[in-house]
Amino acid sequence: MENMLVNDIDDDKPKEECGVFGIFTKGNTRVSSLVYYGLFALQHRGQESAGITASNNEKLISYKEMGLVSDVFNDEILYDLKGNSAIGHVRYSTTGESKLSNSQPLLIQCKYGELALAHNGNIVNCKTQKEILKNRGSVFHTTTDSEIILNLIADQDEQSAEDAIIKAIKNISGSFALVLLTKDKLIGVRDPNGIRPLCIGKISDGYVVCSESCALNTVGAEFIRDVKPGEMIIISNEGMKSIMFSKDKRYSICAFEYIYFAREDSIIDGINIYSSRNLAGEVLYNECPAEADLVIGVPESGIPAAIGYSKASGIPFDLGFVKNRYVTRTFIKHSQPMRKKSVSVKLNPLRVNIEGKRIVVVDDSLVRGTTSMRLVESLKNAGAKEVHFRVASPMVKCPCYFGIDILHKKELIGSSMNIDEIREYIGADSLGYLSIDGLQEVLKEHNGICTGCFNGEYPVDIGTR
Amino acid sequence: MENMLVNDIDDDKPKEECGVFGIFTKGNTRVSSLVYYGLFALQHRGQESAGITASNNEKLISYKEMGLVSDVFNDEILYDLKGNSAIGHVRYSTTGESKLSNSQPLLIQCKYGELALAHNGNIVNCKTQKEILKNRGSVFHTTTDSEIILNLIADQDEQSAEDAIIKAIKNISGSFALVLLTKDKLIGVRDPNGIRPLCIGKISDGYVVCSESCALNTVGAEFIRDVKPGEMIIISNEGMKSIMFSKDKRYSICAFEYIYFAREDSIIDGINIYSSRNLAGEVLYNECPAEADLVIGVPESGIPAAIGYSKASGIPFDLGFVKNRYVTRTFIKHSQPMRKKSVSVKLNPLRVNIEGKRIVVVDDSLVRGTTSMRLVESLKNAGAKEVHFRVASPMVKCPCYFGIDILHKKELIGSSMNIDEIREYIGADSLGYLSIDGLQEVLKEHNGICTGCFNGEYPVDIGTR
Amino acid sequence: MENMLVNDIDDDKPKEECGVFGIFTKGNTRVSSLVYYGLFALQHRGQESAGITASNNEKLISYKEMGLVSDVFNDEILYDLKGNSAIGHVRYSTTGESKLSNSQPLLIQCKYGELALAHNGNIVNCKTQKEILKNRGSVFHTTTDSEIILNLIADQDEQSAEDAIIKAIKNISGSFALVLLTKDKLIGVRDPNGIRPLCIGKISDGYVVCSESCALNTVGAEFIRDVKPGEMIIISNEGMKSIMFSKDKRYSICAFEYIYFAREDSIIDGINIYSSRNLAGEVLYNECPAEADLVIGVPESGIPAAIGYSKASGIPFDLGFVKNRYVTRTFIKHSQPMRKKSVSVKLNPLRVNIEGKRIVVVDDSLVRGTTSMRLVESLKNAGAKEVHFRVASPMVKCPCYFGIDILHKKELIGSSMNIDEIREYIGADSLGYLSIDGLQEVLKEHNGICTGCFNGEYPVDIGTR
Amino acid sequence: MENMLVNDIDDDKPKEECGVFGIFTKGNTRVSSLVYYGLFALQHRGQESAGITASNNEKLISYKEMGLVSDVFNDEILYDLKGNSAIGHVRYSTTGESKLSNSQPLLIQCKYGELALAHNGNIVNCKTQKEILKNRGSVFHTTTDSEIILNLIADQDEQSAEDAIIKAIKNISGSFALVLLTKDKLIGVRDPNGIRPLCIGKISDGYVVCSESCALNTVGAEFIRDVKPGEMIIISNEGMKSIMFSKDKRYSICAFEYIYFAREDSIIDGINIYSSRNLAGEVLYNECPAEADLVIGVPESGIPAAIGYSKASGIPFDLGFVKNRYVTRTFIKHSQPMRKKSVSVKLNPLRVNIEGKRIVVVDDSLVRGTTSMRLVESLKNAGAKEVHFRVASPMVKCPCYFGIDILHKKELIGSSMNIDEIREYIGADSLGYLSIDGLQEVLKEHNGICTGCFNGEYPVDIGTR
Repeated sequence: MENMLVNDIDDDKPKEECGVFGIFTKGNTRVSSLVYYGLFALQHRGQESAGITASNNEKLISYKEMGLVSDVFNDEILYDLKGNSAIGHVRYSTTGESKLSNSQPLLIQCKYGELALAHNGNIVNCKTQKEILKNRGSVFHTTTDSEIILNLIADQDEQSAEDAIIKAIKNISGSFALVLLTKDKLIGVRDPNGIRPLCIGKISDGYVVCSESCALNTVGAEFIRDVKPGEMIIISNEGMKSIMFSKDKRYSICAFEYIYFAREDSIIDGINIYSSRNLAGEVLYNECPAEADLVIGVPESGIPAAIGYSKASGIPFDLGFVKNRYVTRTFIKHSQPMRKKSVSVKLNPLRVNIEGKRIVVVDDSLVRGTTSMRLVESLKNAGAKEVHFRVASPMVKCPCYFGIDILHKKELIGSSMNIDEIREYIGADSLGYLSIDGLQEVLKEHNGICTGCFNGEYPVDIGTR
Repeated sequence: MENMLVNDIDDDKPKEECGVFGIFTKGNTRVSSLVYYGLFALQHRGQESAGITASNNEKLISYKEMGLVSDVFNDEILYDLKGNSAIGHVRYSTTGESKLSNSQPLLIQCKYGELALAHNGNIVNCKTQKEILKNRGSVFHTTTDSEIILNLIADQDEQSAEDAIIKAIKNISGSFALVLLTKDKLIGVRDPNGIRPLCIGKISDGYVVCSESCALNTVGAEFIRDVKPGEMIIISNEGMKSIMFSKDKRYSICAFEYIYFAREDSIIDGINIYSSRNLAGEVLYNECPAEADLVIGVPESGIPAAIGYSKASGIPFDLGFVKNRYVTRTFIKHSQPMRKKSVSVKLNPLRVNIEGKRIVVVDDSLVRGTTSMRLVESLKNAGAKEVHFRVASPMVKCPCYFGIDILHKKELIGSSMNIDEIREYIGADSLGYLSIDGLQEVLKEHNGICTGCFNGEYPVDIGTR
Repeated sequence: MENMLVNDIDDDKPKEECGVFGIFTKGNTRVSSLVYYGLFALQHRGQESAGITASNNEKLISYKEMGLVSDVFNDEILYDLKGNSAIGHVRYSTTGESKLSNSQPLLIQCKYGELALAHNGNIVNCKTQKEILKNRGSVFHTTTDSEIILNLIADQDEQSAEDAIIKAIKNISGSFALVLLTKDKLIGVRDPNGIRPLCIGKISDGYVVCSESCALNTVGAEFIRDVKPGEMIIISNEGMKSIMFSKDKRYSICAFEYIYFAREDSIIDGINIYSSRNLAGEVLYNECPAEADLVIGVPESGIPAAIGYSKASGIPFDLGFVKNRYVTRTFIKHSQPMRKKSVSVKLNPLRVNIEGKRIVVVDDSLVRGTTSMRLVESLKNAGAKEVHFRVASPMVKCPCYFGIDILHKKELIGSSMNIDEIREYIGADSLGYLSIDGLQEVLKEHNGICTGCFNGEYPVDIGTR
Repeated sequence: MENMLVNDIDDDKPKEECGVFGIFTKGNTRVSSLVYYGLFALQHRGQESAGITASNNEKLISYKEMGLVSDVFNDEILYDLKGNSAIGHVRYSTTGESKLSNSQPLLIQCKYGELALAHNGNIVNCKTQKEILKNRGSVFHTTTDSEIILNLIADQDEQSAEDAIIKAIKNISGSFALVLLTKDKLIGVRDPNGIRPLCIGKISDGYVVCSESCALNTVGAEFIRDVKPGEMIIISNEGMKSIMFSKDKRYSICAFEYIYFAREDSIIDGINIYSSRNLAGEVLYNECPAEADLVIGVPESGIPAAIGYSKASGIPFDLGFVKNRYVTRTFIKHSQPMRKKSVSVKLNPLRVNIEGKRIVVVDDSLVRGTTSMRLVESLKNAGAKEVHFRVASPMVKCPCYFGIDILHKKELIGSSMNIDEIREYIGADSLGYLSIDGLQEVLKEHNGICTGCFNGEYPVDIGTR
């Protein structure tokens, strides 16, 4: 049997929590279909639910459901979501919290009128803020921290929604890339450390604010710039206005945006995602060379680094696995009995490329190790003489508190084993990780990366946990 | 063609907004299936959505969906709704408001912990209360007045949920039969005028509070008494406690509960529903006699009064129409083209009983007149020599503000035509309504009936509209 | 507890297998929506699947699904079923055979071109015919006897489809009311004994052939006459033609069409269904009088006979049960646990009418006795002093082989117990059935009734079983 | 806008019609889940419907639905499909024929008992055969040629099903890889020219017969050999038996199995699919070199040939496009309005790799040219200095009659334009195809390839069309 266990590959990656998209135009009353395509380009950031809220300058209307963007929306629904401005959201969530009432955008009525919010990130002081708000009479319908942000805003005594938003976000800490919609304004906010990405684009008679530049391309918008850490962008009929609500914090964008989350054709804070992954492969070779006959990548996300590794080493690159494109969530749910029988269907080794060769296999990251173990076993069964496992990011040793579902510490293989133990666990002939310094070199054009999950140095006080 | 237009019969009736059911036991952790059967018995009070919230003494869990009780719930869902106390709700709603987020029970977290609410009725001062709450920082997710009640409770500064509930409901006016659930208490509340019904039953190791006694029968509970106007019932491990939060208001139960809403085997405030409808037919004959060969009733709700009319008059009773039992909502939606062609499928006249006879046809109420017109036409087409239309309730002339969807004034035929004009409009040879005095006689054991929709005398100040 | 077990009432009735409807017009290319309404009026004859096949003079197209007519079809589907002639079918089937591939109409291609069939009835020599056909090279895709009819037709060597049909049906025995469609003809066939009903109606530029006259009323067609036993009707652009393919058989229409199956506003073979049920109640009183205070009927099908019994006896008629209209198949499926707890929700006794009274309860038939037992128990629990059970049809002692799902002999209470044992089993104070002679008197205008299930005298040789 | 039109890539490929899988064991009564995994591995051969028929030695049972294997089946359904032998089918079909009744396996009853068939291929003399059969009394329920095969079998007068199958298939011409199931035998048949692939594997206590060896790997079966052209394999409790029913025909496997259809880890008739595609890229470079800075492949199917082209030329290989993995059928259906606006979402060019470079882009085939045109445009928009388009298969000039949905002649760009016209149409700076000789070189280990779609030389008489 030359295969590996079903579905573990995606199980073994960190999970991003969300993608956000907002658009404001003066005259186009059909912006919802642009949001649809924008969310579609951001679908890799969350597949559990999707939603759009639109404003026609007078009233906000909203539609959201569990499922993929293309399953949630159809022409009729998009037609009904009339408006010249709109925001949208795609959401990933950990089990248990995965329900419709927690999906976004959240749409509320408050003293500032109707207000909708789409949020990517994680608030670290939400427990305290929720208690304070409850004591002041607030009511909560969901278990999301996004609802806390909205209640905080509604609880301010300010002249305008903008002022209330600024006041409110000064009380929260953590990561947040927000798009908010009032009946006549689109507001974008990036947290003081810029942990989550957010960028601005220009479209014929308006603006777009969204998580990644690939969504700008999809809707035909021109990239202007990234939103700065601590910046609030307000877009209305008067054009675009910027307010810096926080200036002194350390820039700390999540390294995993470059390593795994963002789409390869996006550019975030001036760094091209594909190039950074390619370069990571090159630096990885310099740090952890191997003598081998072939470099392969773990599909899909390990391929760019594998090509970089091949380039730097001169060892030829080729495909090592055929991926079954029809592995759906439904399939995974049904496959339990077979799973136990160790019969695999997802990643099938290309024996013709593997047999009798010394193989370097490159993956973008290594979190739990279970998939890596099965990949190595599958390559050996396909006749690989040696398997040299290379990881194009540093060892993950610590949890993340800023919106990535990196597992509890005990589930992180890097927190309990050293590199040699891991090598033995996954059965590879050698194992090498990119170093933190190597990562810094790859991302040297960006001087503020959060490396919390590698070394526990978090940009924000996470309190006692 | 001896038929009548599709679907108009139900269209032409007032609509009830809700049914509520609550149960508290000491040890039975499977009460959700009792709520299911209770809601099933109350299904006639609302068919758009159904929901149950259960408490296991620590946490509340909730499930609700659009649709009939039997479509929303299945064994698995009920099994997951573990708890020894629970509340449930069935909802009817007018179009436009009909969406999942407005369905009930509403479940929130607030300073008093978790709190769930199921509400039958209508708050008349909700606009004002909502403004006040928004100015104090409250956030609203739905357009229901039930959410306002919850926010009002959360906004109180009291020692306990009960105290906060009392404080809150003193601020609202209108009709409300409420069941509320905290982690360890079931609370029932009936508005100061007792506009909506609510009764109490005893079950082996606990209590039930629900809209109608028929739901007590279904779950095997013994009827104890009706909740009094202005009374709050608190059921906990300490047993049942009663608090009168309002005493001096006029008892004003909605007359339509007796005329049309309540199920015929229920007893409300001491009056048997079936008997009251039977008696209404008798009094109707005394007030509006007719010379005829046969008395028929409009199925199903006109039958009891028709039997009463037959009894009082001595004119034989028989069936006049065959109802197609398969007329579903889906059918109605599809039938538009045929509708225009005046081909009917729902109520089919029994020509053999009608032909060549003078017919008295009795209906429970007459609101818009369109159905009555088609029924008369259908009887004439089936060969009726004369058609004498009799209505077992007074003429509806005014809107209702207390939870019945009685249409705008201009849609009430009784607000713009006198009796002879209506007779001509519906094409009957004679027309007679029960008088308000006649209704009072029928319900003489109950000295406090709201007759607002007949004569505009409302028990509560409805403000300026 | 004043209730009875869920769902047993319908379980305890014989089941009809099908309703058929065919229409041929010269110019109306939208006849499918008329078939839809026709099937809707015949829905009581079968609720498991529904289908329509239409011809546009060149090609036949078909659509069928499991479910009610209104669930299976929508405007779009009906629009696609373009044609000036069409046939339709509603099907009931016993479990195990209930699947889409057995639903009708069946549409095939054969030497006579395209041919579609909708069949009500049961072929008793199908096993032999199927063997013969298989040996001649035939292939079968379903387990229906209807497919055998089609293969028999295709296997003939005749000049035309009509001739082949005549040849084929001479080989089959049993009950069959058929409508067949070719690209340019609508054909109706009634078996030599006329066991299943079939009638003809006239519509503006064409004809309708269908199971019951109530479907003619619904589509605005004028009743012409019943198809005769052994008659084939051919409708084409040349008008209507009649061929008698069998003349000498005994007229033997199924008595249960009058007792229970047919809709009350239908007229079959000259007898009005409602009147016959009414009259059955009168004759029943004459044969089995009772001293009592009130006559009630088991809803819905026992009501007409109850009214007749009341008329003949002078004992007042009133309602005895409130039926919960929301008992759906889904509900029944979910209700298993409660069922065991004997908590009922479907038929709720009206205690106010029952308590302290001697009650005559009339049902149309009594097959297994389980429901009757629970109804009597429920009436006693509601305070009835005496319960006199009266059945408006003879005792069912034998199975049916002609399309009614009357259960195996051992499940028929009438095959193993005498009347007094049954009385004791159901717990009634007295029990009376209509006699076979009484039934003959009721249906005296029809001199050929099949009484096979009452006395085992079948009109057709059923072979050895 | 650096994108290309939605969805055209897959639209522009030839379509395979089916995949088949059969298994026979002596004792394993749960083989249906192995068929499930086998079909899953063959899903790329057809995505419209899936079905399984199983035999428990006495009776055959079947389940099939429209949709992907993982959507059609779940644990419960597989559990019900009990049996120790089974066959399965995945189907692609052209629009109009796409309906459940045409899905497979087809299961019939005939003189040889129950018989099920799963078929990959296309019968070219089906019209004639169908007429003959109809004249002999056969009835057809579907429009598939597979049903004709079954009727032909049932129409033979032989001692056994095997003999009847041999007799029947001698009457049909075209392509067919069949698996048939009787209650106690599994039969595999490959047409006399071996146009469609079929191979045999060994599993613990039985055998597997299926379209491609990748399905053997997935279920843990060991590859034995390919079924020979004109061979019938019979597997029963007596083991495996081979009968050659035709010997003298030219071996003519479909070239597109190697070019596009088969999965890269399959081995067909001794040739490794991945290697053949790799080699095609190398030969392509030798035939059509280009001076360029980068070689990219059209994902996914152009990648292996692109790597071969890079290897042979020394020009570096890298990724050129990012594919949005969430482009589903639903998405495509919804995207019509955007499609017209030329906004693309599926294949997104990696500008960082493209800009300022001379690009060789390799695709496996070029059928209509519309996608290629948009890919070139998209690369130019992303800044490519030159675009050299290379096709790793010969020019498609003729329709296919053997089971591939290659479009009508007029839709094949190769039938109406010469190479320079095509180059201009797609906007490339140069264009090169693999020659037929080049293809023969690539597949030189296989001396019998069908090249009908390239040069009109078909292995079977296709009659007059």
